[in-house]
Amino acid sequence: MSHQTFLTPGPSALYPSFEKHLRTALDAQIPSISHRGKKFQSIYRETFEALQELFSLPEEYAVLFCGSANEIWERLLMNCVEKHSFHLVNGAFSKKFYQFSQQLHLQSGQQTAAFGAGFELENTQIPKDTELLALTHNETSAGVIMPEEVIHQLATQNPDALTVVDMVSSAPYPQLDFRKIDSAYFSVQKAFGMPAGLGVWLVNKACLAKAEEIEKNIEGRSTGTYHRLTHLWETFEKFETPETPNVLGIYLLGKIAQDMLQKGRDTIRKETDLKANMLYDFVEKKEGLEIFVQNPAHRSPTVIVVNTATESSKIIQKIAAKGFEIGSGYGEYKNKQIRIANFPATSVAQIEEFIKVLDQSV
Amino acid sequence: MSHQTFLTPGPSALYPSFEKHLRTALDAQIPSISHRGKKFQSIYRETFEALQELFSLPEEYAVLFCGSANEIWERLLMNCVEKHSFHLVNGAFSKKFYQFSQQLHLQSGQQTAAFGAGFELENTQIPKDTELLALTHNETSAGVIMPEEVIHQLATQNPDALTVVDMVSSAPYPQLDFRKIDSAYFSVQKAFGMPAGLGVWLVNKACLAKAEEIEKNIEGRSTGTYHRLTHLWETFEKFETPETPNVLGIYLLGKIAQDMLQKGRDTIRKETDLKANMLYDFVEKKEGLEIFVQNPAHRSPTVIVVNTATESSKIIQKIAAKGFEIGSGYGEYKNKQIRIANFPATSVAQIEEFIKVLDQSV
Repeated sequence: MSHQTFLTPGPSALYPSFEKHLRTALDAQIPSISHRGKKFQSIYRETFEALQELFSLPEEYAVLFCGSANEIWERLLMNCVEKHSFHLVNGAFSKKFYQFSQQLHLQSGQQTAAFGAGFELENTQIPKDTELLALTHNETSAGVIMPEEVIHQLATQNPDALTVVDMVSSAPYPQLDFRKIDSAYFSVQKAFGMPAGLGVWLVNKACLAKAEEIEKNIEGRSTGTYHRLTHLWETFEKFETPETPNVLGIYLLGKIAQDMLQKGRDTIRKETDLKANMLYDFVEKKEGLEIFVQNPAHRSPTVIVVNTATESSKIIQKIAAKGFEIGSGYGEYKNKQIRIANFPATSVAQIEEFIKVLDQSV
Repeated sequence: MSHQTFLTPGPSALYPSFEKHLRTALDAQIPSISHRGKKFQSIYRETFEALQELFSLPEEYAVLFCGSANEIWERLLMNCVEKHSFHLVNGAFSKKFYQFSQQLHLQSGQQTAAFGAGFELENTQIPKDTELLALTHNETSAGVIMPEEVIHQLATQNPDALTVVDMVSSAPYPQLDFRKIDSAYFSVQKAFGMPAGLGVWLVNKACLAKAEEIEKNIEGRSTGTYHRLTHLWETFEKFETPETPNVLGIYLLGKIAQDMLQKGRDTIRKETDLKANMLYDFVEKKEGLEIFVQNPAHRSPTVIVVNTATESSKIIQKIAAKGFEIGSGYGEYKNKQIRIANFPATSVAQIEEFIKVLDQSV
């Protein structure tokens, strides 16, 4: 198979420095080291410090590792909600988080917006008894963002709720003020350009306090076992993990986060905006294509969703034959849309090249 | 750092063909492919078929993927136990599985044996109401095995219980009759010689039926969310997973399982026995060292635990300076024992060389 350029919103292109760091890790025998030794502790510390700097995390934050963002949804609900979480749902992934609350028999609520629409501050109604408010910075299925200032205002207006932010397919793009929110999380196979298998959970002491309260006060309620928040936090304080973790993934994440710091988070953000504008501008002018998200303020810079006048599967095939992989629409939009990931692994030159290919393929 | 040979019972030496398969996977861009596409389905199928053959799994078995064996303990208890699991506990890991049942507020029971001892069929007392019987083929902390025939007899004597077998640090060594047991599991960073981050769950339809029963009949009881057994099984039937899984790990596991089939499982077992005998024979004769497990029938072929007359940390350091990494004792035995992993990744020649080094280091 020829070497393809992946602009897919699921697993995606590997970060340019990924292979170099992998080689170094193999030479240093990182996959074989003990997860109970000093070498692993210093890897965890290094990755923690890089992410702490990349996201400007306040002191009271831990960085914890799970298997996936799906797992983080489950752990958040089991550990930080006695009865009521509340979910702003505008796509498949925010909906799945809400559905998890139902599968755990919580009395959670949701406010929904149409697929492709975002939430306006003035129209959201968050119940007073909300213990955990679930917001999505970037809804991967619809390509819709919630601007940072809306996230911050919702968090500020609901001081009794823990505000948690899904940035699975946008981190490190969003400039979140982590003093205002309580937790955020992402998966490494999106904008960090790594193989899947690691969910990264940024979480503060208010979430920990809630988990402690549930464990102490709610008769018969379990917060889980090896990955209950109290235990994850306890091991984090020694830069250890409850189980044998994805040591290699934690190492590589730290190295890529350091590379991102080296490049500069602002530079990455500006480059992402530049590439996103190139894509949206082209789509706007191109016959047979249409920007899906109506409100420009809600258009995702990292997952660009495009309506296609003809079957999208055929366009995707033509594009693949010319060296680029892109995503189909999600769910019922599968054959009506394309989704183009615009992650830091992809250069401006690659997006220029891709736009030419897209132009020829529609 | 010089290249060390890892004979550690945690993460351990990589399987000899690991790097070759990793290179092929990177060339084929496996880390970037969609987990919702045909390419991933065929990877899952291929890994499933290799493990099915390696373990002689009957038709009614699924192979499911979790983040770790810790996760599999939690999923087994949440999905296959309404009230009573029963655990034969003789070390840190069998104890942890039992403790998980307490953290989930089940009314589980345990029978304990001294650290270093195994269970005799005639002395075990399994309560009649046991829904899930937790057995450990190889207790990694103590280097104690439960022979396959004991596992099979316990399973047969308790037909109303689901029998599940921990083979975390011994698979593919044990020749289990999967028609007699209901589930077994392992982690890839032990005898499969891979980086950690994948727990492999072999599970039959009797376990699935139990999970369905709990979901339908037990008011207010949750079996979990994305990784509840019913959902894992549903996705398995399409060779998919609920979340974005560790695609690269699943691919590499399949390739290594194929290599093991190529070599022959009997050959691997015989080689393991040969190397284990070399190690035990040497330890028996060497002054300053003593085999920990008294009963020869309970001595693990894959994790050899040795009492040291002097501080084991000093012996471990000397050995490390000569190119071999081994494990310390577990818990309170940390400085009184050494643990030597004898996994398929290590050749007879390497064990010969290691024995010379051990001889010089005590």
